[in-house]
Amino acid sequence: MIAMTPSAELRRIRRVALGDLIHRSALKFPRRTAVVDGDVRMDYAELDARSSRFAHALLERLGSGHQIGMLCANSADMVVAYNGIHKSGNVWVPVNTRLDPAAIDYILRHAEVSAVVVDEALHAAPGMAELLARLAVPLFITMAAGTETAVANACTLAQAQHGQSDALPELDMASEQPALIMYTSGTTGHPKGAVHSHASVAAALMGNMAGFGITEQDVFSALLPLYHCAQHTLVATAHMAGACAVLLRGFVPDEVRASITAEKYTLFTGLPMMYGALLADPAFRAPSLRLAIYAMAPIPDALIQVIAERMTPNVQLATGQTEMYPGTMTFKPMEHPGLGGNFWGFSLPHNETAVMDDEGRLLGEGQPGEIVHRGANAMLGYFKDPEASAAAQRFGWHHTGDLGMWGPGGQLMFLDRKKDMIKTGGENVASVKVEAVLLGHPGVAGCGVIGLPHPRWSEAVCAFVVKKPGAELDEQALAAHCRAHLGGFEVPKLIHFVDALPATSTGKVQKHLLRKQFERLAQEAWTKEEGA
Amino acid sequence: MIAMTPSAELRRIRRVALGDLIHRSALKFPRRTAVVDGDVRMDYAELDARSSRFAHALLERLGSGHQIGMLCANSADMVVAYNGIHKSGNVWVPVNTRLDPAAIDYILRHAEVSAVVVDEALHAAPGMAELLARLAVPLFITMAAGTETAVANACTLAQAQHGQSDALPELDMASEQPALIMYTSGTTGHPKGAVHSHASVAAALMGNMAGFGITEQDVFSALLPLYHCAQHTLVATAHMAGACAVLLRGFVPDEVRASITAEKYTLFTGLPMMYGALLADPAFRAPSLRLAIYAMAPIPDALIQVIAERMTPNVQLATGQTEMYPGTMTFKPMEHPGLGGNFWGFSLPHNETAVMDDEGRLLGEGQPGEIVHRGANAMLGYFKDPEASAAAQRFGWHHTGDLGMWGPGGQLMFLDRKKDMIKTGGENVASVKVEAVLLGHPGVAGCGVIGLPHPRWSEAVCAFVVKKPGAELDEQALAAHCRAHLGGFEVPKLIHFVDALPATSTGKVQKHLLRKQFERLAQEAWTKEEGA
Repeated sequence: MIAMTPSAELRRIRRVALGDLIHRSALKFPRRTAVVDGDVRMDYAELDARSSRFAHALLERLGSGHQIGMLCANSADMVVAYNGIHKSGNVWVPVNTRLDPAAIDYILRHAEVSAVVVDEALHAAPGMAELLARLAVPLFITMAAGTETAVANACTLAQAQHGQSDALPELDMASEQPALIMYTSGTTGHPKGAVHSHASVAAALMGNMAGFGITEQDVFSALLPLYHCAQHTLVATAHMAGACAVLLRGFVPDEVRASITAEKYTLFTGLPMMYGALLADPAFRAPSLRLAIYAMAPIPDALIQVIAERMTPNVQLATGQTEMYPGTMTFKPMEHPGLGGNFWGFSLPHNETAVMDDEGRLLGEGQPGEIVHRGANAMLGYFKDPEASAAAQRFGWHHTGDLGMWGPGGQLMFLDRKKDMIKTGGENVASVKVEAVLLGHPGVAGCGVIGLPHPRWSEAVCAFVVKKPGAELDEQALAAHCRAHLGGFEVPKLIHFVDALPATSTGKVQKHLLRKQFERLAQEAWTKEEGA
Repeated sequence: MIAMTPSAELRRIRRVALGDLIHRSALKFPRRTAVVDGDVRMDYAELDARSSRFAHALLERLGSGHQIGMLCANSADMVVAYNGIHKSGNVWVPVNTRLDPAAIDYILRHAEVSAVVVDEALHAAPGMAELLARLAVPLFITMAAGTETAVANACTLAQAQHGQSDALPELDMASEQPALIMYTSGTTGHPKGAVHSHASVAAALMGNMAGFGITEQDVFSALLPLYHCAQHTLVATAHMAGACAVLLRGFVPDEVRASITAEKYTLFTGLPMMYGALLADPAFRAPSLRLAIYAMAPIPDALIQVIAERMTPNVQLATGQTEMYPGTMTFKPMEHPGLGGNFWGFSLPHNETAVMDDEGRLLGEGQPGEIVHRGANAMLGYFKDPEASAAAQRFGWHHTGDLGMWGPGGQLMFLDRKKDMIKTGGENVASVKVEAVLLGHPGVAGCGVIGLPHPRWSEAVCAFVVKKPGAELDEQALAAHCRAHLGGFEVPKLIHFVDALPATSTGKVQKHLLRKQFERLAQEAWTKEEGA
């Protein structure tokens, strides 16, 4: 084998670095708008200059190679700050701002952050100032221009940039050095920190650009939180391509409709329920849109039709997970009208997908198993958790914890989270299949289906349902609906109405909390049954 | 800095390998056509299976990590063979088949090949059988199905595949191990072998897919030789995307027009003169085309207009070089109708471009200097030539040897090859500028402009011109044409008509041969002038 040891010069030539992407777009498109945030319109030259200034400030204060926490809602300042962190060779640790203070404290301490960028409003939230003060690290507070902070060991993001150079810092960085740690939203246990390198994130961005045909002409929605991989990867893809990202803080249907129209979005990404809410206004049309991406949950066929008629016929699911930087796969439901089910489709060009049994054998069409991936977008591992890292990497494939099956035409069908598959009377029941049937009832607003211990069936299918406001619906009617659409063993043994479901910030039902909350209720129900 | 040492499993998960790309497309698009070669239509499943079989044959015979020479004209077998080489972890060394035997011998020996894949017809060319026998390495001969070879130490490509597994070989390969060595066509001296890794080639492919918006719906032309980086990178990009490549052996206008129409090309790539020849038939239209790429030479404005009217309005220049795997930049002349000149436009998303002076300073708009690049598509270096490698990598930028200048709107303008810039009477004259003016004369078919030593001007601008058949043209008329379009110091001091120009297989005029051939003629001319 030829050995060509790369020189320092060659490493510099060939490096992949997330901060370079903004700089390269600024070289090509200095006057194109990179970020819209309310009245703020920041072009690439300015985003490049500001993020370089913040990078120089970090290099001066901290140097390179440290973790830097971030507690921010979507804003132009947040985009400046994380690009500055990347340009300085530090490691971005975005934190879900909706977590409770104990979870935030856990993540910042577990990640061993050397500084924190925090929104003024979040710093002022109950307990946060004390929590951050106890960390005893420098704070950079995002505040309105011209204001100052009285917080000890803190300066504003604007102050930090003051007097620093606009030039891209010239650092000796490696493509494989850590660029970010994202803590998984964690439906069970402590959150785990997925560590990604510059190269692993950039692999996903380039694959997204190729797979979704992104150009500098695109205008992206950015209303999901940027601390989540799904929104970050899309905004970063936009910025690699020289496109525009319109930042919103959360989902207010009227605001989103107005923004889509005013900014002429070409690409919208939202959860299925967001599409439903936007299209609830019968007058709403989005003629500028060329691509509607949905994520996180299956979407009813009827809603796809409405999106196609009133937004764009190019409707695509994008999948991914923090550990396998998104996107990983994409499905075009309009091209497979008869397929039904919960399909994830094809792999994007930068990675490969297989279905695997517990012994590492790859499975063919119709055989359920764990969905596994290979690709340069895989994380380096979980921070300080070699055991969980090794488990995710066994047999040389990234294990997603999702169950799936190859369907017709090489399209992947998602079955369930591995741990959410219900084993009842010797049969496997996919909780998501039962949920889809329940959501098909006009009176159901939301639901979570779990298996709870049952003396006879080992586990029993149990459904927890939120009714639509004003819906007249009882257990018997819903059970009849289920019997009409499901196999006998799939029909919930217990249907229980609740006011709300415990959910993560991205809308995933936290099934471990459902289990904890309703285990006793189920036991009582089974005891009553036996007595009857 | 967090250190996360990658496990063998993680290296396997995250590896980038050129052989994987075919395999991944076959998983998604098994029945889509990958290659058309005359009557042969090979789908992805078959290309994947055949190339895996050849890979297993190579692993059995040679193992991994060896250089394997290739002397092939474009064919489906050639595509099978180089993908097999990539899948086996060996290093592909394609050789320009039009070189003379001594140059072929030099390359195969310099590259230390352990085997050679050779077309039957090329093996039968004068001296080739002996040349290859003297190498004393196994030969794999591409021959018609069912035939056998009597050549010692040889088997046919089909025989090699016989009985081997269709499965992708599972090897411990690294993204950065060498994947190919391409010898530069070399307008001077011995050819140099540019070594690329799997990752460096793949970076270009993903950038091409993103930059040109390639999908599985595309049908690519492939009539330039596949041993050249320009055609290989496009076919490999097509194969990453699941698209079709239509292979032709050389350029016969009638055949190419018929193929474009029959196969419904969406993407055509050719030299400017090829577009001229195709469109010389006034009835020819190419309504299926969505992208017309030209390369290697500037293209007259008038021809762009005809391409736009009769082929597609999406006309783009693509640049690159063997050392910086193509493409590197792209220019859209239809978007810049007033720009004129020889523009290279913008960098593709996987790399960055700058203009540099000899001391490593980056230059701004209007300042001529060397065109340099950074990007993951840069070669590892020149094989066994650390000095030339270091020179190409100085200041942490890849040096192209081309002179350029930033023009308006951040578009890069190509000026000349660094060594072809003529220094005359204290002024710099770009040979390509003078050539463009000469080519603008209706009687000129081709030309090469060089500087030759002159007693008074240090160098003098000298033009060697091929007339169009039947054109009535003399030196005086052409000199007048030049005076009308060039500055006085740019007008050739010597205009000399020739029947043909020495050129490389990609159509580049070999100026070192022109210099050698006409140095004496010029000296005689200057002596005569003095005497006059």
